[in-house]
Amino acid sequence: MTLVVIGGVAAGLSAAARARRIDASLEILVLEKGAQISWAACGLPYYVDGRVRSLEELVVYTPERFERERRIRVRAGAEAVAISHARREVVLAGGERVRYDRLVIATGARPKLEGIAGLPQPNAFTLHTLEDARRLREFLASRRPRRAVVVGAGYIGLEIVEALRTQGLSVTLLDAGGTIAGREDNFLVRAVSQHLERFRVSYVPHQPVRAIEPDRVAGFPCDLVVLATGLKPNVELAQEAGIEIGPTGAIRVNERTETNLTGVYAAGDCAETTHLVTGGPVWQPLGTTANKMGRVAGANAAGRRERFPGIAGTAIVRLCGLAIGFTGLSAARARAAGFDAAAATITAGDRPRYFAGRPTEIELVADRRTGRLLGGAVIGEEGVAGRVNVIAAAVSRALTVEEFQFLDLAYAPPFAPVWDPLLVAAQQLVREL
Amino acid sequence: MTLVVIGGVAAGLSAAARARRIDASLEILVLEKGAQISWAACGLPYYVDGRVRSLEELVVYTPERFERERRIRVRAGAEAVAISHARREVVLAGGERVRYDRLVIATGARPKLEGIAGLPQPNAFTLHTLEDARRLREFLASRRPRRAVVVGAGYIGLEIVEALRTQGLSVTLLDAGGTIAGREDNFLVRAVSQHLERFRVSYVPHQPVRAIEPDRVAGFPCDLVVLATGLKPNVELAQEAGIEIGPTGAIRVNERTETNLTGVYAAGDCAETTHLVTGGPVWQPLGTTANKMGRVAGANAAGRRERFPGIAGTAIVRLCGLAIGFTGLSAARARAAGFDAAAATITAGDRPRYFAGRPTEIELVADRRTGRLLGGAVIGEEGVAGRVNVIAAAVSRALTVEEFQFLDLAYAPPFAPVWDPLLVAAQQLVREL
Repeated sequence: MTLVVIGGVAAGLSAAARARRIDASLEILVLEKGAQISWAACGLPYYVDGRVRSLEELVVYTPERFERERRIRVRAGAEAVAISHARREVVLAGGERVRYDRLVIATGARPKLEGIAGLPQPNAFTLHTLEDARRLREFLASRRPRRAVVVGAGYIGLEIVEALRTQGLSVTLLDAGGTIAGREDNFLVRAVSQHLERFRVSYVPHQPVRAIEPDRVAGFPCDLVVLATGLKPNVELAQEAGIEIGPTGAIRVNERTETNLTGVYAAGDCAETTHLVTGGPVWQPLGTTANKMGRVAGANAAGRRERFPGIAGTAIVRLCGLAIGFTGLSAARARAAGFDAAAATITAGDRPRYFAGRPTEIELVADRRTGRLLGGAVIGEEGVAGRVNVIAAAVSRALTVEEFQFLDLAYAPPFAPVWDPLLVAAQQLVREL
Repeated sequence: MTLVVIGGVAAGLSAAARARRIDASLEILVLEKGAQISWAACGLPYYVDGRVRSLEELVVYTPERFERERRIRVRAGAEAVAISHARREVVLAGGERVRYDRLVIATGARPKLEGIAGLPQPNAFTLHTLEDARRLREFLASRRPRRAVVVGAGYIGLEIVEALRTQGLSVTLLDAGGTIAGREDNFLVRAVSQHLERFRVSYVPHQPVRAIEPDRVAGFPCDLVVLATGLKPNVELAQEAGIEIGPTGAIRVNERTETNLTGVYAAGDCAETTHLVTGGPVWQPLGTTANKMGRVAGANAAGRRERFPGIAGTAIVRLCGLAIGFTGLSAARARAAGFDAAAATITAGDRPRYFAGRPTEIELVADRRTGRLLGGAVIGEEGVAGRVNVIAAAVSRALTVEEFQFLDLAYAPPFAPVWDPLLVAAQQLVREL
């Protein structure tokens, strides 16, 4: 019995490792088109800003070490170009054919650059691979650029803004829409805009970019441009093999992460999953989801029956000392999904005043008809991840705001005020329902 | 219609304020036997260590300000000595009688000092009131003691250990049992013992204290002793009025916080409540519970029908840079409560290694029969409160460990590793079930 995994980063390696743990006799082969496997894509901005000294720190396993410790064959530099499911074969660039009994597709995603003319340019970068990060850091060190334009106010865009400001560049952040990290919540967009202003980042929303010129982008002069315009799932290989694509544009899978082809699973950034609040399909490419989904794909490919329940849409990003986190649905998306959404936004201290509490802003969203908590966003300096995670647990489990306001949350002055900001927000939202 | 509230700190003032918000026409009178109301008891250790400069910082409202802003009469220095429910009267020291239609009892708790001979002593302190804190800080400033004994390894004991070490005293911590902050979890006791050792605090468990001598406690020489031997609920006033006391020794109330006497409510440190995991009565006097319960008592006293669901037993304490938090049941208590408890303990980085992650230890406890998560403890430097709160939300809502391991938690390198330690612990526990 042979399991072939296409893709050697988060989802692919989680799948391979889990399958090995379940079935010691399985033949497992990981095909990775790049030179390296098992690297931490989310660490790239921190290599650019210098906190991470060498790219090796971001690489968890070499192919050799993974083979040795996990007894899983890894072929780096092996690009899958076709899948023939009738023959149970993966075709590699060069023509070699690799047989499988079970297949996990973890082909990831790639930067979405369509509609931007003038690429490549020596001073234009994406930040998607180790090589991207190496090129950008070298450019910063050797050319000493002074003015940067970052295109796209998503997670990567914001992290790159922080990295470039840390390096002393003047930064202009352009976004085609008006969202921040993909969220349209008014209070969040306002708070982050103000924070960007405080850090002298020029933020220009509703500014599409159609071309990169050598010294300017959309009229903004610069020595450097970073394109953080979002991702698209790598689905072509699957699609050509007859695998269904879902409404999000990513590979459609069932709750066992299986595609429409029996024995073929997909996980990670190339696959869609279920949103725990809407119940509908969602594509939000993040490392956490990739790892969890990959683990389930690996278990099922190894003969277990496991279920990946879906995601709440949780994310967090740091921007110049501010943490911005959210989960579930914003009020606007809740309305679009058919809920009768009510929202409450509060500002409260993240600790008691006498313990140097700093303001944290929270928005909670609930459904008027059922009282169910649908989502929330938290912005502040301390404790943001923890508070977002409490909301994530609550929305995943369909708590009502009534129930949420009585959560028994940890309190001591070094950590929180006696009324946690989450509960203050919930009390406010109860009044709005 | 007159609402009388006995007690002017957390539960009492929450009740009064909530009742006012619900019914603007209600007569509301708060009786407080002390000189001050509305002070933050949990801040006292941070006044002793000097972080809080003046006790005024710990006082949120003066009686005058509360009266002015909330339109609630407050009588400080008014001690209730009897309740005659037949006449709907509270009798004050001095003989004055105060009529009520509805009554909220929020008489709090007091230090438990029974069985300790030799008190008072000029160098022996409790830390329960503003006056206690003032006396202790003055003693530290004027007498410059070098050696302290702290009796009791509960929250207050640990916080006082930190405060005294911060002031440079050598500290011996004695505890009659072997628990830390009331928890008997092996891994927690071991981790905290090691941490105490690292900070050169001599920790002596299983050391009962029967007498305070002027220069030594249980044979340990000292210039100063702080008694943090726990609390007992102030129930005598209620008990003499015919109000039922529960098995925990605190006032028994129903889910609306009403006692066995119609129209008489009890909330806060004098009352017991329901443990959300065992479903049984529990008494765990904490400010968070007092405030929430007081709010519900006030709402019901003002004619609403609200329910206080109970507590998960969540708490957190800081000890010399280490955060120690827990919620739900320990494995030992889960077994005592009839669960077939399994536990898993893991150590994992609180952030990625390349982002200076530091170890955090987590224990999760679940029931083998149902897979239900029953409790957990978290020890570490960063993110402990947030992680404990996620467990608290999960145990309150009876999540299974299977479900818990798929929680969509926030991830970015400055905040967490891609596999949050909570999920690592859950995966480990799933394997134990």
